[in-house]
Amino acid sequence: MSSKDKAQALGLGRRQWLAGSAGTLATLGIGALSSSAANAQAPSAAPASAVSAASAAAAAPAKALPAYAAWKDASAVIIHSSSTIETKRQAFGNGLITPAEQLYVRNNLPAPDAAVLNDRDAWEISIEGVKLPRRITLRELKTMGLETLPMVLQCSGNGRGFFPSKPSGTPWTVGAAGCVVWTGVSVRQLVESLGGTLAGHEFMTGTGGEVLPQGLDPKSILVERSVPAKAMGDALLAWEMNGVPIPLAHGGPLRLIVPGYQGVNQIKYIKRLAFTPQESDAKIMAHGYRISPPGAKADPSQPSVLEMNVKSWITSPLPLVRPAVPGQVQIQGLAFGGLHAIKRVEVSVDAGKNWQEARLVGPDLGKYAWRQFVLAAKLAAGTHTLLSRATDMAGQVQPEQRLENVGGYNNNSVLDHAVTVTLV
Amino acid sequence: MSSKDKAQALGLGRRQWLAGSAGTLATLGIGALSSSAANAQAPSAAPASAVSAASAAAAAPAKALPAYAAWKDASAVIIHSSSTIETKRQAFGNGLITPAEQLYVRNNLPAPDAAVLNDRDAWEISIEGVKLPRRITLRELKTMGLETLPMVLQCSGNGRGFFPSKPSGTPWTVGAAGCVVWTGVSVRQLVESLGGTLAGHEFMTGTGGEVLPQGLDPKSILVERSVPAKAMGDALLAWEMNGVPIPLAHGGPLRLIVPGYQGVNQIKYIKRLAFTPQESDAKIMAHGYRISPPGAKADPSQPSVLEMNVKSWITSPLPLVRPAVPGQVQIQGLAFGGLHAIKRVEVSVDAGKNWQEARLVGPDLGKYAWRQFVLAAKLAAGTHTLLSRATDMAGQVQPEQRLENVGGYNNNSVLDHAVTVTLV
Repeated sequence: MSSKDKAQALGLGRRQWLAGSAGTLATLGIGALSSSAANAQAPSAAPASAVSAASAAAAAPAKALPAYAAWKDASAVIIHSSSTIETKRQAFGNGLITPAEQLYVRNNLPAPDAAVLNDRDAWEISIEGVKLPRRITLRELKTMGLETLPMVLQCSGNGRGFFPSKPSGTPWTVGAAGCVVWTGVSVRQLVESLGGTLAGHEFMTGTGGEVLPQGLDPKSILVERSVPAKAMGDALLAWEMNGVPIPLAHGGPLRLIVPGYQGVNQIKYIKRLAFTPQESDAKIMAHGYRISPPGAKADPSQPSVLEMNVKSWITSPLPLVRPAVPGQVQIQGLAFGGLHAIKRVEVSVDAGKNWQEARLVGPDLGKYAWRQFVLAAKLAAGTHTLLSRATDMAGQVQPEQRLENVGGYNNNSVLDHAVTVTLV
Repeated sequence: MSSKDKAQALGLGRRQWLAGSAGTLATLGIGALSSSAANAQAPSAAPASAVSAASAAAAAPAKALPAYAAWKDASAVIIHSSSTIETKRQAFGNGLITPAEQLYVRNNLPAPDAAVLNDRDAWEISIEGVKLPRRITLRELKTMGLETLPMVLQCSGNGRGFFPSKPSGTPWTVGAAGCVVWTGVSVRQLVESLGGTLAGHEFMTGTGGEVLPQGLDPKSILVERSVPAKAMGDALLAWEMNGVPIPLAHGGPLRLIVPGYQGVNQIKYIKRLAFTPQESDAKIMAHGYRISPPGAKADPSQPSVLEMNVKSWITSPLPLVRPAVPGQVQIQGLAFGGLHAIKRVEVSVDAGKNWQEARLVGPDLGKYAWRQFVLAAKLAAGTHTLLSRATDMAGQVQPEQRLENVGGYNNNSVLDHAVTVTLV
């Protein structure tokens, strides 16, 4: 049975099947609570485990932290589902690095059993598409090199909640992002030590080590993504996040880190890193995470969700939760540029009529990290609409409007991220 | 009754009274478990509250995390007492910033009641010794500016545990230190906005807001420290640590941050910041934390514990907990220079006969932060003594030997921080 047939057997409509993995995953109980797919009824034809998971999800939406993320700060996050946890906008502070307990979670499949952490160093990865392919344990990787890299980690659906079209999937606003420090071995150096990539193998394809549910075509569910092979340049196979072994919720024991790329490309529990002549034909690559024009079906010819784009948002003041009083206000926020460092951030306190350049605050952690910005502005009593607009070193400017697309991806609209505050 | 008389009434010997605040504090139940002072018997003349606290401390040494630090990662720390908690050497990773749940704690007095966090913005500080002295709430400070600064925070007693003389106080080895990101307002800018300091007021004196125990001379117990006024240049009045409001255990709602200075100068719960013509005459300044030569009494003429000195230590491999196998080993560690950036770190794998320059890893967070270093070395089966030696931008080199002193302060000895590992 093809994955499409399976999806149909599961009672999922075509649009749900096409919209990334939302349809199939809903049957596993890990879809977004607010997505229409998550409300699909699992028919009796579905595998028993999937049925019970779906029923459980329908009966008791996960409003408590799931076990594998029980250590998160519940007051700092929005729990959309057991696999989708968002940082509250007001939780972002000025510490440059997002504490792990505040960091968002988005899993495409249930995490492996926590037992994989019992002997982290025994985790194995297969390196393929190189002259000297082999399996390597994490224990050995740790002897091969050491790099530390701060990087914005962001779900490509971050900002989906601002789409009036209400795309299927988690309605993240700004909190499916964080700036995280990864430590691991350089993929480039690892590949060089294995003789380099095979000629014509222009993609770097990572495969997650999640346990696949029975009864579904693996290609329909496997977490496998391809990025251009050149992205290996600054990529890591990482075993530490923020200075501690990577938590299970964030892909430990071993995660592929491709700096500047959207989160779905940062393969958790990575078990295979292959240089390939073509992109993966797994559904999550071929049809999922495509920038499909409104009304179109997802299609491998459409752009995939790869590099992040230039983006910023204000974190303070915020209505109600971070109020300001009339007078001088320190307007604060975060900005990042994907593959390019931030050049400047402008702020408007009058809904975009006038703009002032904000000051970048704190040390520069490198082009893949975000910058904090601040603008001291005098605001009178009343209502003000605050906007931020980032420009990267390549001259790309954060656009006023979102690019409409079916999946609600890559939203970096200035207007969508506006904050309207009333000062009394 | 003078504080000395009071100390004598409490049954404390002269040396205990002179050794910083160890004697008096032991009666409050917050001395180091291993210090002889902590075993002092509180006589019936002592205030009832102090007696019960001392009895409790004697009867049940704090091996569990105290309530105000219950959120710490118990597996990553050594709990010396309810006010002294050390990061395990093997907990230091390569994340540049020390996660709050791993960060050491050293309180000179019990923290204020947690109720002070109910309305953080209402916290008030008095700014004195400036042309326009005044009281300012944290709410207003937050409107006045915003700076973010990564900085090594270290107790001046870090490394005391390596002194063969077994000084009174907590026997920290390397874990009374962390690299932390502080956010607050620039003291220099604040002072400028208040007209500048008064002429001849050459010291910046910070006073903690802890509740002082009854029945003792306040000067004998008050946490009040003076640093040269020039230290205001990069100093902050900080309300965030690692991007979240400063936890009570670390000095929230408001803490004075004097980058490059030892931890005792980073005044927690700060209620007064005064520019003064003289150093404070509080005991913690006048007699505590002095570099007293062996056998000498503490004396205000002796150097105080102010700027940190250049220092490094290896974090991996470590005996038993971070073992290595024969072959290539990535020798890792941390280095910092107090007021000066790190220029280089050298590593020896043969107990100091030969040295190789290590590679600095990860972004440079500024001169007050630490740098991670790594040296890839081939180590044969057998026992190896690994040393690290840091040099700062001012050309100061970490010394081979410690400077002996009564209190066990400022230990940056290369040999004391050696690691001996056996590879099999």
